[in-house]
Amino acid sequence: MTSLDLLHHKTLSPAARLDALRLLLADYGLDGYLVPSADEHLNEYVPQAKQRRDWLSGFTGSAGEFLVAQDQAWLFVDSRYHEQADLQVESSLIQVSKLGLEGQKTLEEMLESLGQAADAAGRMFRLGFDPFTLAMGHYQDLERKLKLAGVDLVPVAENLVDRVRQQSPWAEMETLPPYGESAIFSVPDELAGESVGEKLRRVRAALQKARAQILPVTRLDQISWLFNLRGWDIPYNPVFIAYAIVTPDQGFLFTNLERVNADIAADLSKQVNLLPYDRYAETLVTLVARPGQRVLLDGRHTTRGTQALLLTVPGIQIVEATHPIEGLKARKNKTEIEQMQAANLKASRAKTRTLKWLSEQLALGNPLSEADVAATIEQFYAAEPGFQGLSFNTIAAAGANSSIVHYGTPNSQRWLESREFLLLDSGCQFMGGTTDDTRTTIVGEPTPEQIKCYTEVLKAHINCAMQRFPKGTTGSQLDGIARSDLWRAGLDYGHGTGHGVGAFLNVHEGPNGISKRVNEPLEPGMVTSIEPGYYRADWGGIRIENLYVVRDLTPEAMALSDPAAIKWYGFEPLTYVPFERQLIDLSCLDSRQQEWLKNYNEMVVEKLSPELDSSEITWLEVACKI
Amino acid sequence: MTSLDLLHHKTLSPAARLDALRLLLADYGLDGYLVPSADEHLNEYVPQAKQRRDWLSGFTGSAGEFLVAQDQAWLFVDSRYHEQADLQVESSLIQVSKLGLEGQKTLEEMLESLGQAADAAGRMFRLGFDPFTLAMGHYQDLERKLKLAGVDLVPVAENLVDRVRQQSPWAEMETLPPYGESAIFSVPDELAGESVGEKLRRVRAALQKARAQILPVTRLDQISWLFNLRGWDIPYNPVFIAYAIVTPDQGFLFTNLERVNADIAADLSKQVNLLPYDRYAETLVTLVARPGQRVLLDGRHTTRGTQALLLTVPGIQIVEATHPIEGLKARKNKTEIEQMQAANLKASRAKTRTLKWLSEQLALGNPLSEADVAATIEQFYAAEPGFQGLSFNTIAAAGANSSIVHYGTPNSQRWLESREFLLLDSGCQFMGGTTDDTRTTIVGEPTPEQIKCYTEVLKAHINCAMQRFPKGTTGSQLDGIARSDLWRAGLDYGHGTGHGVGAFLNVHEGPNGISKRVNEPLEPGMVTSIEPGYYRADWGGIRIENLYVVRDLTPEAMALSDPAAIKWYGFEPLTYVPFERQLIDLSCLDSRQQEWLKNYNEMVVEKLSPELDSSEITWLEVACKI
Repeated sequence: MTSLDLLHHKTLSPAARLDALRLLLADYGLDGYLVPSADEHLNEYVPQAKQRRDWLSGFTGSAGEFLVAQDQAWLFVDSRYHEQADLQVESSLIQVSKLGLEGQKTLEEMLESLGQAADAAGRMFRLGFDPFTLAMGHYQDLERKLKLAGVDLVPVAENLVDRVRQQSPWAEMETLPPYGESAIFSVPDELAGESVGEKLRRVRAALQKARAQILPVTRLDQISWLFNLRGWDIPYNPVFIAYAIVTPDQGFLFTNLERVNADIAADLSKQVNLLPYDRYAETLVTLVARPGQRVLLDGRHTTRGTQALLLTVPGIQIVEATHPIEGLKARKNKTEIEQMQAANLKASRAKTRTLKWLSEQLALGNPLSEADVAATIEQFYAAEPGFQGLSFNTIAAAGANSSIVHYGTPNSQRWLESREFLLLDSGCQFMGGTTDDTRTTIVGEPTPEQIKCYTEVLKAHINCAMQRFPKGTTGSQLDGIARSDLWRAGLDYGHGTGHGVGAFLNVHEGPNGISKRVNEPLEPGMVTSIEPGYYRADWGGIRIENLYVVRDLTPEAMALSDPAAIKWYGFEPLTYVPFERQLIDLSCLDSRQQEWLKNYNEMVVEKLSPELDSSEITWLEVACKI
Repeated sequence: MTSLDLLHHKTLSPAARLDALRLLLADYGLDGYLVPSADEHLNEYVPQAKQRRDWLSGFTGSAGEFLVAQDQAWLFVDSRYHEQADLQVESSLIQVSKLGLEGQKTLEEMLESLGQAADAAGRMFRLGFDPFTLAMGHYQDLERKLKLAGVDLVPVAENLVDRVRQQSPWAEMETLPPYGESAIFSVPDELAGESVGEKLRRVRAALQKARAQILPVTRLDQISWLFNLRGWDIPYNPVFIAYAIVTPDQGFLFTNLERVNADIAADLSKQVNLLPYDRYAETLVTLVARPGQRVLLDGRHTTRGTQALLLTVPGIQIVEATHPIEGLKARKNKTEIEQMQAANLKASRAKTRTLKWLSEQLALGNPLSEADVAATIEQFYAAEPGFQGLSFNTIAAAGANSSIVHYGTPNSQRWLESREFLLLDSGCQFMGGTTDDTRTTIVGEPTPEQIKCYTEVLKAHINCAMQRFPKGTTGSQLDGIARSDLWRAGLDYGHGTGHGVGAFLNVHEGPNGISKRVNEPLEPGMVTSIEPGYYRADWGGIRIENLYVVRDLTPEAMALSDPAAIKWYGFEPLTYVPFERQLIDLSCLDSRQQEWLKNYNEMVVEKLSPELDSSEITWLEVACKI
């Protein structure tokens, strides 16, 4: 996969795009239009054809909502994207609202102000939106908060950004990228660890427990997991555009059938009805219209469009509950864990080789750009057996760029300079497993402050990674544990500490995560990143990220506990890459942290050495010496 | 205040009470009846006349729902009450469901089973309840989860437990205690720090911000706070039975007017309409029925009864939002903080004197019972100027009893024995301030295991208490920080780490707290307990509790931070009582923990000495030596 390159948009006028949209708003009698980041499948990484917010605003981050009113436009981004948004949008056209900073309005607050102003003029602020691009829960939140604030949410059947993009002069200048045309392929049961039949059985049991009969599936990773199928319709995510429906005795998969080969079609048809993508809505409505059928919807995983469709069915019974596939997918089975271990070991090797290459090039005095570093790790990834593609765009950020949390465009003209950080956050996809890890290294000699800050971030990482915790512990509790020492040092980071990761699926998946917003308990088999950081604009940023799998701890390990009463869990690393020893002040680590680091370093050497050559082993042994 | 004594109920037959209720259920065609812990004002501590669950089940804890079906009855209690419930209920009549333990059903799960069984028999399980004893949010939760599970929630206008209690033979044997008859008294502005007029102005501003015009107030502590009034209608809580309504230009207070003296009535009538208690419902409905009036309800602070009442008004517009008084009340003003400091200093002195008395009595070999210890601290409290009463029933638990988290009945026959813990959790009310603290001490020589466990709990306390944290930090993050070291040692506790505390109000108040369920950020001026523990049945329990106020930290204290970007907060102690030095293994504390302990001990001596005599100072200096 190559990284996104939307720079060519700059050759067309962003102002003209906004003008065209505003003409449409006037036609519809709308005061504003909401352009969320997500598409019809609530994707985080959106297929190019559906990158409407990017196309309209110029901002390419993975999250951020865009609001266009007649005279103004606002982009709302979290701390990961504060700097990137400033760099990407035209400030004369679009105001960037930096969420989390004092005095910066959220989307809701901005809409409230607009509603108030309209209200003062004796009318409502009419906000248009495409109901298929908003999660049902998000819509309900907005509706509840805004209906009394003078804002009228007006669903518009056609997507107005698509209309501008396809019916304007630009339609002649750029062809819309293909959509849903990649070949669909199978993940064999030996890699998935569970057959489609068994997965359907477990989903149906969960559906019955929730007292529902019909389960629509909108999320592409849920569909890919359920049917042990993959595709490459989306950048970085090995999924394919589709809908699915599960009932107690039937299964439906709706997708572009032209790219489904005969073997897969024959295999699937044993348990699933294979139908064209555009048959989803009518099939769902027909199923639901039968008497006594309750449909399960999850506010985070169903679009307002699907919900609105169902609400047209007389007597519809909707069960709002947690989507059963989400929890099943997150708890990896034995085979999936083995695949994740194998995949992350390969990725660890590639990153370690990149770090060695980097140190050698720098020692030789060869000039290196951010793009050189990104290209090198991507080559090492591609050389590993079973490589399928990247799991996100490689972040290779030098110096001050490393303070941009999701710096997405390694620059071929930005050279690595002495005394600067290089932050390398990258991951890839192998058949069976997904990887994601970050190392921050230093060019030349570090300053004492760089050492101090790196060491604090490393301590945050270790504190979380070595924590044992009882069943029921939530991501928010662990988030506090990760930050405790860092806060004492007066440092913090604006993003969460960790996210769930799929098994040869999306690099970000729920329901588990480590952040103050996650009340979900961590359970054995869940995979999570641990990635504390520290960022200071114009100075640089540090992030240290490994993946871990949650494991049951044997009672023997726990001295004073009553094994009958409490189940204890812990983290087992999937990533084995040396940290930057030049940046570690060992004297700031307590004995437990030092012991964890020593054990980890020993395991890095042990795990990686079998496939390394002797010069690589020598380099690694030095890198892991503390 | 004397502690609750419901033991006389034992002289009447619990079986006969349940039988009488079951006859009523049959009359109403109900399969079951839900008896929550709370009353019409959602009180945690319930006036005796409304202690329906206690009267029917025998269980006197501050939380726990009781479900009565035709053949069985279940009491649902959290880990604080697992042991107490077993001791108090008759196991032949009532099954105790211990929430949090494997295989124990929650109320909802039990109802789901009952619904399923009814469903299999082709009907619904009809669950009766009094809508004024359920919070609206709780009702909505139950309704959403149970409506598809074969359970029909049937509101019953009269409270069936009241009917059994008042119309059965027992009505002749026990008179219902008085209800809402205590004298109402004022808290002067010098102690409250804010006038009623100013409070009303801030509540109205918040109401306007939420775009509502009418605010019903159900919670007694919210009413007491708003009007700077107090009463003693409830054990331990200095509040009075009342409702209130705030509108942009009016205020209403509904209470038993007979106990409002002329001065208070005259003072209040300047800004509030003073009306009899039973005028609440009709006044609310009349106000809401005027055109364009939106009423603000908070699911946690409004009863289903009030909501159902409002839903009968045609065209009613309900804004579901956070109750504005809750956050205003939690952020204590300068005067309230000073009052809390003064109150807790008095309570600290009383507890310190109790600990000295205890050590001397034990040294003399005098036999002491749990009840002796409780009586002694209550005497020391009462001797402090401005003492108003206890803030909860004193917990003085010896040996294995200390493992009962909320052990509520100090026993005059349970003697303190050598090598056993004594856990003393107590608090009181002063004009202006509320207190709550816990010390665990040892009789005679401790065992190494007792020292080990106490030290780990102390570390948990210190880790939380010394934590600096940025604005936005939630109670759940701090909960993890408190538990981190304890988990490493294989220990944990089943309750939260901390709760909010009112200023001469309830000892438990929201919205802040420190537990995995609390997503509310801690803000300057909020008061919280920090009270980690460790409990093992048949062995004993440890809890170490102080109150703290959240303070803004000066930027100077934070070395590397950017004061413009992050606001840092920390905890300042309100409680100053020595820990049990015999139980502390200093070598297990790291240098930061030792430093915190040393500073704290110095402050204990400094804060308490001015009012102690020389023998007390001598004892204290030894107790604070590490």
